[in-house]
Amino acid sequence: MIIVMQADASQADIDRVVQRVEGLRLRPHVIVGTERTVVAVVGDERDAAGSGFETLPGVASVMPILAPYKVASREVQSEPTVVRAGSLVVGGTSIGVIAGPCSVESLEQIVETARQVKALGATALRGGAFKPRTSPYSFQGMKEQGLELLAEARRETGLAIVTEVVSPEDVPLVARYADVLQVGARNMQNYRLLEAVGRTQVAVLLKRGPAATVEELLLAAEYILDGGNRQVMLCERGIRTFETHTRFTLPLATVPWLHARTHLPVVVDPSHGTGHANLVPAMAAASIAAGADGLIVEVHPDPKCASSDGAQSLDFPAFGRMMDLCRRVAEALGRTLG
Amino acid sequence: MIIVMQADASQADIDRVVQRVEGLRLRPHVIVGTERTVVAVVGDERDAAGSGFETLPGVASVMPILAPYKVASREVQSEPTVVRAGSLVVGGTSIGVIAGPCSVESLEQIVETARQVKALGATALRGGAFKPRTSPYSFQGMKEQGLELLAEARRETGLAIVTEVVSPEDVPLVARYADVLQVGARNMQNYRLLEAVGRTQVAVLLKRGPAATVEELLLAAEYILDGGNRQVMLCERGIRTFETHTRFTLPLATVPWLHARTHLPVVVDPSHGTGHANLVPAMAAASIAAGADGLIVEVHPDPKCASSDGAQSLDFPAFGRMMDLCRRVAEALGRTLG
Amino acid sequence: MIIVMQADASQADIDRVVQRVEGLRLRPHVIVGTERTVVAVVGDERDAAGSGFETLPGVASVMPILAPYKVASREVQSEPTVVRAGSLVVGGTSIGVIAGPCSVESLEQIVETARQVKALGATALRGGAFKPRTSPYSFQGMKEQGLELLAEARRETGLAIVTEVVSPEDVPLVARYADVLQVGARNMQNYRLLEAVGRTQVAVLLKRGPAATVEELLLAAEYILDGGNRQVMLCERGIRTFETHTRFTLPLATVPWLHARTHLPVVVDPSHGTGHANLVPAMAAASIAAGADGLIVEVHPDPKCASSDGAQSLDFPAFGRMMDLCRRVAEALGRTLG
Amino acid sequence: MIIVMQADASQADIDRVVQRVEGLRLRPHVIVGTERTVVAVVGDERDAAGSGFETLPGVASVMPILAPYKVASREVQSEPTVVRAGSLVVGGTSIGVIAGPCSVESLEQIVETARQVKALGATALRGGAFKPRTSPYSFQGMKEQGLELLAEARRETGLAIVTEVVSPEDVPLVARYADVLQVGARNMQNYRLLEAVGRTQVAVLLKRGPAATVEELLLAAEYILDGGNRQVMLCERGIRTFETHTRFTLPLATVPWLHARTHLPVVVDPSHGTGHANLVPAMAAASIAAGADGLIVEVHPDPKCASSDGAQSLDFPAFGRMMDLCRRVAEALGRTLG
Repeated sequence: MIIVMQADASQADIDRVVQRVEGLRLRPHVIVGTERTVVAVVGDERDAAGSGFETLPGVASVMPILAPYKVASREVQSEPTVVRAGSLVVGGTSIGVIAGPCSVESLEQIVETARQVKALGATALRGGAFKPRTSPYSFQGMKEQGLELLAEARRETGLAIVTEVVSPEDVPLVARYADVLQVGARNMQNYRLLEAVGRTQVAVLLKRGPAATVEELLLAAEYILDGGNRQVMLCERGIRTFETHTRFTLPLATVPWLHARTHLPVVVDPSHGTGHANLVPAMAAASIAAGADGLIVEVHPDPKCASSDGAQSLDFPAFGRMMDLCRRVAEALGRTLG
Repeated sequence: MIIVMQADASQADIDRVVQRVEGLRLRPHVIVGTERTVVAVVGDERDAAGSGFETLPGVASVMPILAPYKVASREVQSEPTVVRAGSLVVGGTSIGVIAGPCSVESLEQIVETARQVKALGATALRGGAFKPRTSPYSFQGMKEQGLELLAEARRETGLAIVTEVVSPEDVPLVARYADVLQVGARNMQNYRLLEAVGRTQVAVLLKRGPAATVEELLLAAEYILDGGNRQVMLCERGIRTFETHTRFTLPLATVPWLHARTHLPVVVDPSHGTGHANLVPAMAAASIAAGADGLIVEVHPDPKCASSDGAQSLDFPAFGRMMDLCRRVAEALGRTLG
Repeated sequence: MIIVMQADASQADIDRVVQRVEGLRLRPHVIVGTERTVVAVVGDERDAAGSGFETLPGVASVMPILAPYKVASREVQSEPTVVRAGSLVVGGTSIGVIAGPCSVESLEQIVETARQVKALGATALRGGAFKPRTSPYSFQGMKEQGLELLAEARRETGLAIVTEVVSPEDVPLVARYADVLQVGARNMQNYRLLEAVGRTQVAVLLKRGPAATVEELLLAAEYILDGGNRQVMLCERGIRTFETHTRFTLPLATVPWLHARTHLPVVVDPSHGTGHANLVPAMAAASIAAGADGLIVEVHPDPKCASSDGAQSLDFPAFGRMMDLCRRVAEALGRTLG
Repeated sequence: MIIVMQADASQADIDRVVQRVEGLRLRPHVIVGTERTVVAVVGDERDAAGSGFETLPGVASVMPILAPYKVASREVQSEPTVVRAGSLVVGGTSIGVIAGPCSVESLEQIVETARQVKALGATALRGGAFKPRTSPYSFQGMKEQGLELLAEARRETGLAIVTEVVSPEDVPLVARYADVLQVGARNMQNYRLLEAVGRTQVAVLLKRGPAATVEELLLAAEYILDGGNRQVMLCERGIRTFETHTRFTLPLATVPWLHARTHLPVVVDPSHGTGHANLVPAMAAASIAAGADGLIVEVHPDPKCASSDGAQSLDFPAFGRMMDLCRRVAEALGRTLG
């Protein structure tokens, strides 16, 4: 931690900072500059979080040096984590493809989708049974019945099931059916939920919140890892910006940035990231080129009849074309899609 | 709802849209323009949410006409809601002032704070017992013990207690102690939690998420109102933007905008909204001038020793100066502070 | 400047950084931490701007300590600058009020507006003659003829004229007519224009660009100050964020933040900052409460007939009510409006 | 245009809107809904821009239907524009690669860079002679001398020259040397400059402003096209968002979105878009996969000695690896790089 003093800080102000640093059993290092004095603090500054240096008289600002996450860091584990959950492998040279409808709507819909996306190369099936919806008047999902339909689709096709869990008390139920527990963007900082999925040994797909920094995403992952569950995939699904021509703004530089800092695999969701089916294939291919370890894509037998997110869902032929495009990019980079 | 066709849409495309509108028991109105055709849809378009018009061939875009919230709307209730919770009155001519530490830390800390802020004009005491924290390695709050200390502070001072609840399963417990249940910014779209507080009759302070639109805030309120709890206060606490000199960007135009559309009272949090104690008094005064019905402000006996959010906490003298400033502005506008 | 080394930086990496610092005639200070080494650099780091430390092997990040602006800084001049331009005084205890139409449209329009806003308390007249417009197909202003009409309005009322200049080659012409040269938000980083207005002795109103940080605003002011013109007013007019219910997001915390760092006065534009006439009065009052030294507001005799920005223009009665509101707030804070 | 009336609008309000529409020689179409009335306007609504419907009593909002740009639109020209400027071809199956330093610094630097990037596959040379810099104290470029060095590098290598012009009065000078005039992000809405480059027949690279919407970018292009210059390339270089781990956020969905709406080719700048050399190759490859028609990349013989933008510049070996990666992706998609 670097504590920058104000230009007019007194010696007493500096002494007060030094004393406080020592009180935290850290080592202060005073550097008198031409315009300002700074105090460099040696030791594990994470112990000093919330220790209020900013509020001391004469202090201009406080700058942390160390990244606040630990277990997720490449400095702790240098080789990449490969997540395996049934038919799904994400990380290393394998690029996983999770496809399916926003919401589970019927046995026929989910089984047909599972068969078709599997034939086109998907390695897991997504489908929402518990749906967090912006409006209380929107369709809220089929709940446990939806989970049973997903399990039936797995029996039929062998595809691993990825489905969202929205509340800690549902974790045991959803974990009985799912191969991967999805923590949605709205719940990225629902810490009780993170703790609850951290206590299971089921793989987790953790989506970035639309206003979350990448550091906050890693700290959210840290809650799960810290609970003992190391099967965590990070998912970039777009952030909220001033752009309105897309539903969210999909910042793919997140992918190489995360790869440099964490061993956890990175999945991209071009469906939510754009909100428009016609932009999904190009952004899926771009995700692969940026180094993504997986894709999660909304596919529906008849998007215009989808009970949610129809505008961003691909139909089967469009999904087939997307897979073809992505496969060519993956192969050009020496990776295997699906 | 207005459905805008593409410039090259065929008659068959238009017919398909018309048929689908009729299938939803709504009335289509086709208007042939010089460059494009639009289909205006008459009837309650909320019934058509998720009906996938955007995915039909030849459709360029779909624009909703009606606001998606109902019970929160001024069109349903024109007179402003006044929330009363013990000593706290928010709405109408009364401006409530909720003050106290980020976290409850000890009996002495919370009782001393309660006494001081009450003497300076606060009408409710805030204090976190269950703390949602970005990092799993940060202090997570005193939990039930913290609630007991808050209750003790209420016995001593008569101040109503405002405290956060972070999980649906905690609602009964927290509701036994609190006069106002705070739903934090990270949980604004934790729908299970909204439903749970909606089933109580305890007043709710609903904070805007840092990436939430004002419409999403009203829809989150709608979850609570729809559950039967009408004692809801909305809270603007800043949004995430590219600005880094403040912790969040505090957009006060939210206040008059909300007042024009909803009968629910609006509270502002200048502490989180700026992140720096020295900016809080000016922004508190600006909130009052913008028409806020309440303030929620972090105050701590010794901010440099606070276990969380010290940098944005006022000490007692600074809170006193802030109250003085706000009282003068409130009186100039014919309102009563505290 | 603090240079943070990577956790795995070698001694050779550190030595290379140290050598380079010394090569710039600055003093390095190596601090070996428990997890990382940092090199604190003593001396005027502005000399080291662009010296590429980030690209050296083993360097993780570089953090500046000193603010990059100089002449604008409170550390250089502690007493506030008061800008005086004819009838307009901005700064100190005086709050200036600049009012008028977006565009000058006719002699009658501008003279009538000048008379009315003066009667209601405005101390300067705004009006665009050179209009920067997003679309080439929109009205581009009356140009020099507009300047003559503004001069006529000044002769009639004595009000100082504030008008925009959009290109360096126009500066001599506009400076012949204007009391204050406005540099618009789109031109905040048009450095040739900044240099050109810096070479005049006419007061300047410098508007913040919608994606500019406050530091970039101060550096843009620095271009003008560095040219020898010290009569500079900064203007907050809203930033671009994800919010769509307002045209821009108006972040009033800019006002006290700037006051703490610069001696230049701060003006707020609630018209562009909100984009909706019905939100302007509340935000004007909030600006005063936040400590603004001036307001610039769009007023039009008949907003629905304005050739630009009608939706955000006040008519005379609404402007009168706004002035009344603002005057009460200003007086409560011991300041004089207009 | 769709004019939405307020729920409580009177018949007189509606009549007033209808009259005003007719006064503009457009055709109104009144649709009485269950909760609100809307007036659909038939005719070229661009004629009605700025006609102030939003300010009429009883009007809730006004929604445009037609895109405000014309000449740039695919509806006007369906086949893609291919820009050719000396050795540079951008559009169709050809992907152009513009590489070189941020600033021209010396003859040796620019000629060596030109030779190396040409050998590695670049088809044009970038280099700044007139540099817009955030701080007046930063290096401002070699100006005309820099242009001469660029011309020398062209003589040596045959590479087309891409260089920035920052002021309308410089256009004739820069156009004598440059094959492509770059309009920088800070100047995207410097309309005098757009008009000036629109009067030349030199190809233009128009960079998106960091807070500009894609519609504003197309309207800026419209200024150039409207002047008679049809050789326009659009350039995505990143937008300003809350993210701080990258210098800007690079939103690649812009590429397919623009391709669907305009015939102009789209270039991506991953150097400014990320700000970090180690993120550039992945984002360059992702740009190609997203469908970009060109890349513009900062390359420097010795990034740590660059007089500007060193942190985001590639050295020659890194540029070679980037080109190899991009070439493989381009070939996989049936396109030719360089």
